[in-house]
Amino acid sequence: MTNDIVITDVGPRDGLQNQPKILTVEQRVQLVKAIAKAYVPKIEVGSFVSPNAVPAMADTDQVLRALASEPDFITPCLSLIPNMKGYEFARDAGAKTVAMVLYASNGMAQKNASMSMADAEEVTLNILRLAKLDGIEVIATVAVAFECPFDGPSDPAVVQAIVAKFLQAGANHVVLADTIGAAHPQQVRDMTATLVQSHGAEQLGCHFHDTRAMGLANVYAAVESGIRRFDTSIAGLGGCPFAPGATGNVATEDVVMMLEQMGFDTGIDLTLLLQASDIAQDLTGALSGGRSKTWLMGHLLKQ
Amino acid sequence: MTNDIVITDVGPRDGLQNQPKILTVEQRVQLVKAIAKAYVPKIEVGSFVSPNAVPAMADTDQVLRALASEPDFITPCLSLIPNMKGYEFARDAGAKTVAMVLYASNGMAQKNASMSMADAEEVTLNILRLAKLDGIEVIATVAVAFECPFDGPSDPAVVQAIVAKFLQAGANHVVLADTIGAAHPQQVRDMTATLVQSHGAEQLGCHFHDTRAMGLANVYAAVESGIRRFDTSIAGLGGCPFAPGATGNVATEDVVMMLEQMGFDTGIDLTLLLQASDIAQDLTGALSGGRSKTWLMGHLLKQ
Repeated sequence: MTNDIVITDVGPRDGLQNQPKILTVEQRVQLVKAIAKAYVPKIEVGSFVSPNAVPAMADTDQVLRALASEPDFITPCLSLIPNMKGYEFARDAGAKTVAMVLYASNGMAQKNASMSMADAEEVTLNILRLAKLDGIEVIATVAVAFECPFDGPSDPAVVQAIVAKFLQAGANHVVLADTIGAAHPQQVRDMTATLVQSHGAEQLGCHFHDTRAMGLANVYAAVESGIRRFDTSIAGLGGCPFAPGATGNVATEDVVMMLEQMGFDTGIDLTLLLQASDIAQDLTGALSGGRSKTWLMGHLLKQ
Repeated sequence: MTNDIVITDVGPRDGLQNQPKILTVEQRVQLVKAIAKAYVPKIEVGSFVSPNAVPAMADTDQVLRALASEPDFITPCLSLIPNMKGYEFARDAGAKTVAMVLYASNGMAQKNASMSMADAEEVTLNILRLAKLDGIEVIATVAVAFECPFDGPSDPAVVQAIVAKFLQAGANHVVLADTIGAAHPQQVRDMTATLVQSHGAEQLGCHFHDTRAMGLANVYAAVESGIRRFDTSIAGLGGCPFAPGATGNVATEDVVMMLEQMGFDTGIDLTLLLQASDIAQDLTGALSGGRSKTWLMGHLLKQ
C-alpha cells in the first residue's frame, strides 16, 4: 500500500462559497496560485452553478481562463458542475477535470438538485458519458455519504451501490463526502474498509468537515482503511464565520501535518502552505485558520 | 473487550492551573459539583503543589474538605501530588485517590521536578508503597510519554519499562500523557497496542491535549487498541487563553460525544455536561468550550 497521499484543496470552492465575503476573480486566482505554490497537487477552483444561487462562485470560467494563461501554473484544477449546463460551461472554459455530485439520500437530492436520487444519478451518468467522449476527467462526489441532515444516517449499501455504479461507468475517482461533518471514525473505518476491499483504494477519496472536532479522527480512520486521497480546505475555510472552526472543511495544514508526521508523503511544503493559509485569511477575513497553525508556525521557525 | 469508558475530568486541575484567572475555593467546588452532576465518574479536583509555583491550585485541601462535607457528593476525586510532602498533605485532607507524575524523559524530570528520571521514579515508588499501606488508590501518570519539549520523541521502550514497573509495584492505573499535545495517532496506536498486549487494558489510560487538532484522532487510536480510560477537561479548559483551542486538554464534551456515537457507554449525561461546560466558561472567562459544543447544543435541543 502506497505512502503517497494526494490532497485536493477545495478551499477556493467549498471554502469560499461558504464565506460571507465574495472575492473578485483576481483574489480567487491569487488564492489558487498561493496554494499551488505550496505544491498542493490538485485544487478545486470554483463551480459552474447559477450565480444567483451561489454568488461567490460567479465567473468561475474567468478564474479557469486566468489560471490557464499563467505561464508557470501547471497544477491540475477541478471545477464543480451541478448539471449538464454547468458541464458545458466548464468544458467551454477549458476545464480538464470536473467534479460531479451524487446523493446518498433522497432528502439531500431534493433539497440540492430538486430531483430524486435516481433522477440525479441518471443526469450525472449522462454527463459522465459525455465527459469521457470529451476527454475530460471526472470526479464523482457522493454527498451525505455518512449522514443526511434531512434523512438521518445514510444506508451503507446505498453508498456502496453508487460507488460501484460510477466506477464501472468510468468515473476516474469517487469521493465519499461527509457533507455536514456528522460521521464518526468507526463509521468511516467500516465504510472505507468495505469499499477498499471491493474496489481498491486508488480510485477512492474522502472529504470531511470538522463540524464536531472529528475531522482528523476521520482522516486517520480512512487512512487506516487504505484511503490515500483527501479533500481539504486551506485555513479550514468554510462554514459559518460567526462560529469559528465550527463547520468548515478539515484544514489542509492540519491534515498535511498529521499525515506527514505519521510518515506519509503529501509532497506539500508546509511553510509555503502556511503562507497560503495567511493569504486565505487575509482575503476572506476568516477568524481561524487550521487549528494547528499557531503550533506549526513555531515548529517550522525552530527547524 | 468492554464497551464501557471511564472518563476522568481533569479540568479543575490541569485546566484551571493553565488559566490566567484564579478561582476561589467556592468556585472550584461549584465547577467540580457541576461536572459530577453530569455523572462524570471521576474528577481530578486539584493538586498539592506549592502555591508559589501554581497559585491556582492553592487550598486544594479546602476543596477536598468542602466536597467531602457535601451530603450528596459521591464522585471519586483525585488530587495530583508532586512529592512526599504533597502526598502527606493530600492524605491529611482525606484524599482517597492520588495521582503521581512519572517522567519518560530526563529533560522533563529536571524541568518539572529538578531531579533525574531515576530519582523521580524512586521518590514516586516510595510514595506508592506508603499509599498502599495507607489504603489510598494511586494513579501513576507518565508525562511526555510520546514526546518531550526538551528531549524530543520519547523512547517507547523507556515508557514500557516505566509502565511495567509501576503496575508491578501496585499502581492502580497508569496513564500515558501526551503532555504537550505532540503525539500523532499512529504513534498512539502502536504504543497502546503494545502496552495492552503486555498488561491488558483495564489498568491503562490516556491523557491527550488538543494542541494540534489531533486530540480526538488520538483518542480514537487508543480505543482501537482497547484503551477505555481517558483524562479529559470540561470545556477543553487549559492552555493559553489568548490562542483559543490551541493547547488545552481534549474537551470532555468532544470525547464523550465521539465515543457515545461510536457505540461506547460513558454513563455521562451530555445535556448536564454542556451545563457544566457553560459554568466552566463563565467562571474562567475562557473563550472556547469543546469544539463540538455549538453543534451539540443544537443537536440535543432537537431530541
